[in-house]
Amino acid sequence: MKIARFSTEGGDPRFGIVDGTELVVLAGDPMFQGFETTEERVSLGAVKLLAPVIPRSKVVCIGKNYTEHAREMGGEAPDHPIIFLKPNTSVIGPGDTIVLPPDSNQVEHEAELAIVIGSVAKNVRPEDYADVVFGYTVANDVTARDIQKLDGQWTRAKGYDTFCPLGPIIETEFDWSDARIEARVDGTVTQLGNIKDMIFSIPEIAAFVSRVFTLLPGDVILTGTPAGVGPFVSGQTVEISVDGIGTLSNLAR
Amino acid sequence: MKIARFSTEGGDPRFGIVDGTELVVLAGDPMFQGFETTEERVSLGAVKLLAPVIPRSKVVCIGKNYTEHAREMGGEAPDHPIIFLKPNTSVIGPGDTIVLPPDSNQVEHEAELAIVIGSVAKNVRPEDYADVVFGYTVANDVTARDIQKLDGQWTRAKGYDTFCPLGPIIETEFDWSDARIEARVDGTVTQLGNIKDMIFSIPEIAAFVSRVFTLLPGDVILTGTPAGVGPFVSGQTVEISVDGIGTLSNLAR
Repeated sequence: MKIARFSTEGGDPRFGIVDGTELVVLAGDPMFQGFETTEERVSLGAVKLLAPVIPRSKVVCIGKNYTEHAREMGGEAPDHPIIFLKPNTSVIGPGDTIVLPPDSNQVEHEAELAIVIGSVAKNVRPEDYADVVFGYTVANDVTARDIQKLDGQWTRAKGYDTFCPLGPIIETEFDWSDARIEARVDGTVTQLGNIKDMIFSIPEIAAFVSRVFTLLPGDVILTGTPAGVGPFVSGQTVEISVDGIGTLSNLAR
Repeated sequence: MKIARFSTEGGDPRFGIVDGTELVVLAGDPMFQGFETTEERVSLGAVKLLAPVIPRSKVVCIGKNYTEHAREMGGEAPDHPIIFLKPNTSVIGPGDTIVLPPDSNQVEHEAELAIVIGSVAKNVRPEDYADVVFGYTVANDVTARDIQKLDGQWTRAKGYDTFCPLGPIIETEFDWSDARIEARVDGTVTQLGNIKDMIFSIPEIAAFVSRVFTLLPGDVILTGTPAGVGPFVSGQTVEISVDGIGTLSNLAR
């Protein structure tokens, strides 16, 4: 089931289930109020899709979770997940503009699969991971590469406003065992990988992260990026696609 | 003015102004609803003080903001603030227990002054910093030092549940130009510094951080720790004091 968060004509955000070219409007936020539908249907072409979730607590990110990307960054694959956080103020939705900060001359895209957490969770066992997952979406872990190198700590480089595009929708039944992930800049493919090549799998990530943090509904976990990260500049459009979920597209300015 | 967040007999959190040994109960959250008082007064001895704020967006932390601490960590003072984040799930209040995670054998205290943000703010000029500050409180930037060294990135080491004690109250009129800051473990002084020795001042921090992130009301900025950080173990009590604000005390288990 594909869940969209959307607005029409600047109204308050609402939620809907994607049905072909339409949305079946839901009575409330399905994460907290279930999937009760209303009588209303709206055309997908008539709405603005929003970030499918705004984390109330945290966006947890996993660094270097694909061997080829770890190598291109000048390191080896880690023996345990390396965690960092992006603030919820960095989240934008599909179609929103990535604002390039004046502090950086090298802003890069990182195509990622994102896990959307659906329940309060601590010390999740790998075999129970599905109990705490609401669904999956697509993310761009936008990174000011020059600032990442300058600071050593990654938080500033990855935390600027607009540096966490999420969307276009949440897929509640995504099969992560084999799915292509791709980044394109103005249509040219720059990253092409497969979710199955992650070093740490979704169950392992859920277990590791929830051993550190209590996870809350609406928390998002970005699961790392495959090789091929690279820069984009003002006026270019970055698209991130995960087969089975969709394409997240953002213009940079 | 000293603002407490408290509960009585397990009730919902309320806010009050400290008046001697009593609290003058406020009508609502003063950050959003002003300082309107009710007729009710309660004895400070009869309430449980809570974390004076629960950040809805972020706890931003400044690393290595005192020269002597930068040296004890094996580095030099940075030429710009180094930023990291703690999640709001790490926040606890005065008197709450710091839970030592099984992943670490070396959990340490870091005494810090915390800025509580009171308004939406972006690109704040240093001279305007006071416009965005609601007040100041005391923080313990609890750190699993072994995990900090293992990961390189500091997020996991500093983000465990209960690793961000805040309190006991928010002082809205704190003078940070000269104030003693101290940590004690079971009564023995381990850190003793002065806020005036910060490398980056409060106005500079507000400007730097708000250049990266949009700050939201309730965001908290931890401003770095002086020299003398050190370990504590289960059964020990860590107290952090900042003159003019108060003492934050937490038992470790």
